[in-house]
Amino acid sequence: MSLPPIGRRTFVAEAAGGLLLCTLGGKRFSTNEEVSVETLNEGLEVPPKVAAARANGGTAPGQAVLAKATATNEYWIQAEQMKWDIVPKGRDQMMGVQVKGKTTFKAWGYRLYSANFAQPLGKATVPGPLLEANVGETVTVHFRSKLDTPVTMHPHGLQYSVDMDGAYKGKYTDPGGFVQKGDEVTYIWEAVPSAEGVWWYHDHGPSEPLPVYKGLFGPIIVRDPNKPRPDKEFFVAFHSFQPAATGLNQPFYCINGRAYTGNTPNLKANVGDDVAFHVYAVDDYFHTFHIHGHRWVPPVGGPTIDNVTLGPGDVTTARFTEDNPGRWLYHCHVWSHIVQGMSGWYIVE
Amino acid sequence: MSLPPIGRRTFVAEAAGGLLLCTLGGKRFSTNEEVSVETLNEGLEVPPKVAAARANGGTAPGQAVLAKATATNEYWIQAEQMKWDIVPKGRDQMMGVQVKGKTTFKAWGYRLYSANFAQPLGKATVPGPLLEANVGETVTVHFRSKLDTPVTMHPHGLQYSVDMDGAYKGKYTDPGGFVQKGDEVTYIWEAVPSAEGVWWYHDHGPSEPLPVYKGLFGPIIVRDPNKPRPDKEFFVAFHSFQPAATGLNQPFYCINGRAYTGNTPNLKANVGDDVAFHVYAVDDYFHTFHIHGHRWVPPVGGPTIDNVTLGPGDVTTARFTEDNPGRWLYHCHVWSHIVQGMSGWYIVE
Amino acid sequence: MSLPPIGRRTFVAEAAGGLLLCTLGGKRFSTNEEVSVETLNEGLEVPPKVAAARANGGTAPGQAVLAKATATNEYWIQAEQMKWDIVPKGRDQMMGVQVKGKTTFKAWGYRLYSANFAQPLGKATVPGPLLEANVGETVTVHFRSKLDTPVTMHPHGLQYSVDMDGAYKGKYTDPGGFVQKGDEVTYIWEAVPSAEGVWWYHDHGPSEPLPVYKGLFGPIIVRDPNKPRPDKEFFVAFHSFQPAATGLNQPFYCINGRAYTGNTPNLKANVGDDVAFHVYAVDDYFHTFHIHGHRWVPPVGGPTIDNVTLGPGDVTTARFTEDNPGRWLYHCHVWSHIVQGMSGWYIVE
Repeated sequence: MSLPPIGRRTFVAEAAGGLLLCTLGGKRFSTNEEVSVETLNEGLEVPPKVAAARANGGTAPGQAVLAKATATNEYWIQAEQMKWDIVPKGRDQMMGVQVKGKTTFKAWGYRLYSANFAQPLGKATVPGPLLEANVGETVTVHFRSKLDTPVTMHPHGLQYSVDMDGAYKGKYTDPGGFVQKGDEVTYIWEAVPSAEGVWWYHDHGPSEPLPVYKGLFGPIIVRDPNKPRPDKEFFVAFHSFQPAATGLNQPFYCINGRAYTGNTPNLKANVGDDVAFHVYAVDDYFHTFHIHGHRWVPPVGGPTIDNVTLGPGDVTTARFTEDNPGRWLYHCHVWSHIVQGMSGWYIVE
Repeated sequence: MSLPPIGRRTFVAEAAGGLLLCTLGGKRFSTNEEVSVETLNEGLEVPPKVAAARANGGTAPGQAVLAKATATNEYWIQAEQMKWDIVPKGRDQMMGVQVKGKTTFKAWGYRLYSANFAQPLGKATVPGPLLEANVGETVTVHFRSKLDTPVTMHPHGLQYSVDMDGAYKGKYTDPGGFVQKGDEVTYIWEAVPSAEGVWWYHDHGPSEPLPVYKGLFGPIIVRDPNKPRPDKEFFVAFHSFQPAATGLNQPFYCINGRAYTGNTPNLKANVGDDVAFHVYAVDDYFHTFHIHGHRWVPPVGGPTIDNVTLGPGDVTTARFTEDNPGRWLYHCHVWSHIVQGMSGWYIVE
Repeated sequence: MSLPPIGRRTFVAEAAGGLLLCTLGGKRFSTNEEVSVETLNEGLEVPPKVAAARANGGTAPGQAVLAKATATNEYWIQAEQMKWDIVPKGRDQMMGVQVKGKTTFKAWGYRLYSANFAQPLGKATVPGPLLEANVGETVTVHFRSKLDTPVTMHPHGLQYSVDMDGAYKGKYTDPGGFVQKGDEVTYIWEAVPSAEGVWWYHDHGPSEPLPVYKGLFGPIIVRDPNKPRPDKEFFVAFHSFQPAATGLNQPFYCINGRAYTGNTPNLKANVGDDVAFHVYAVDDYFHTFHIHGHRWVPPVGGPTIDNVTLGPGDVTTARFTEDNPGRWLYHCHVWSHIVQGMSGWYIVE
């Protein structure tokens, strides 16, 4: 509802200039028209530190940062545009009806490559690849972009020096906060002990939030190797694809890039499994995470729950020992979100 | 704001077909017109497992489920339509003004009956009757409907086998997920030890969320009989009645089916009482629960609070020893909700 | 989005009467026109207890309340109108762009005075002055107003007798719940042990929420003097200035009365500091609090977080030992809010 039609920079200028696409009572509404890359880049200049780094022949991290990198957890990731079908099966199995209308658009995704970008490891996906580390290690991401607007990778939860935060900050922007087509940067992020847990990453470049709303986000986990791992572990993003980001004529409320039961992930476990749902919210809206027929002690302790509210940026883990076979629903309990696609099957055998 | 105008099944078909009643910037808005039962039932077919059970002469639970039922906590409940006044006093005592306009509509409620549906125990209400159990017991609900669209009872928090979840799931639907006029089903739900606490139930049939938004929800409590019960215990639903569900020309933000102070429950306690407010949210919106002049340790521990945010499906308990006499307000702290009715008196003597 | 155009009392009457300024699908939208004081006061009468107190020559608290007051923490505060620039620097440093359009309006603020209102201690501000107490003490506020509509101060978290709650309650209103221009009341609030923590205060008079949305709110802290104080402590209000409250042609999503990085507070700390961000939400919307490059154990315990959701009235403290130098962003993670101003610099040296 409150999603502005355009990126952050242009919004500020246009909003104040009275050129809003749709104004009602002082509020702005998104439009059906997809926001163009030209709009995102209008008046955008290369920040001074980025220009200087490029003039000096590279955008590599400094020695102080490089010295921290461990040998483990090295990723090569490319941001790119790809065709993405939000409802590939064309049906909502929960409601037993067809989902009519166009459901495919040009999404933006993070794509995993083998070492030194030798070859892609599958297609770009929404969400992007899982980044993993044990406490005490670092995560090294070599990041490049094929997109026509500068984008970044900004991690939650991890420790990092300020030049590694992958955020556009006007004249204070470091190279990792403004990665143009053809540029490559290396991020080094530290899985310090206090970073143990589940987190996520996303674009935080000058066009934010539109690149995020087109699909540029993904999960992170930092594990303590001395603690037992769950038998089944699911990374679940609750987010939406809005018309301003997709150009489609309806919004979709999604789980991991897909909408409507049977298209969203079919999650599977067995009785006796130690199961963990790691859920994060990426949106302008809040969502709640609910599973039928199950309950769990919340991460902060206290009595069991079966529903939890997540604002954008929040993360929670629902962990329990599976004891209840059947075809269950997991969904957001905001009814207008479930009506618009935000549910899935959790199948226990 | 984001409440879709129609039920889940028709929404999917109509939304994609471009027949939205009101579209602005790709978002759908609810209308003043009440959604008709005909609309809810358009194209709806009896799911195969429901048809098969009926052909076999009944929709009773299987022996494995029946064997679990304890002798306690047996309920007979009927879903029906009834006249419901949201503002029976016609005034907002907090603001000292009249509430003008029509405030009565045809709500849907759960009505409690004596054993074997011999006779009704009072009228249908919003919320429905409290379901109670001690840990180790079951809750047995004999449920039937007088409504013209299939409805159900789906419980939160309790343990149950998958055929007892009271949820419509397309072709996977069990008899308890599709209860038509004249049908009767029996739900057996288990108050396992981890289910101790406060929960709620609601319709989860093929027309959801509209039946919920017309009043089909109610509270559940599972007690450990070895723990002290509060002296005063209040079950408080924060929800709204929107025009699409009521046909009225304004929304009402409600506590237990009523809006505006003096119409919402007048809750009463005495100094020295061990008081528990059990609050649950049933809506498309988030709400916050606040009491004047009081504070409490949250269920998960930590410092005291006097305000807590609840997304739809969330439940919280505010428990404290009463030490402060007077006529207090309890309310949602979202100002547009309090302005539209979401406050009440809490009177301590 | 859901901010009603007018105060609570008039809303009830007008809404039901069908005189809404803008109705779409049964929902009300705020307008660009600032709501007038005349509208707020239409039909408003002096409540009987307030009239009686005035007839008796004063609105002082009774002896039972006065006897509780400790010698410490006595404040003289005046509510008044003042010119307030939401974007005094005229630029968004995070995005490197100018913020065009009018950004100054007639705000309402709480202004601190020296003893007996001898002289103002600076200007009125948004938020108002910090109120402080140690557990076991009271907070005494002598409050008067220069505004043309009755306003109040209503505290969260503190203990107080019911006549000290600073809330309008129709015919039950005490003098402290209806402070007209020229009137003066004294509030005495108790920092009982269970009130330890961070809270806030706000107008709760007959025109609420508009006076709050014009700036009438501020922070409270109750400390245990035996516990170590943070080295750096920030009180951070997440709120918005909407057109109905400002008369400006766009909403601003604010931190402590300002919008856009460089205008919002530049918070500063040093490596090694024990840092506390005390964050409270004052709005119709939820917000989330996020800091780049940092994480903390939530007040209720459990794993570390770097993002937390706050509904209106919620308060949280992010406390950690600073170990990460640089120019960081802290912001609300609702993207449409950050786009409209809700971010700031946190600078660590």
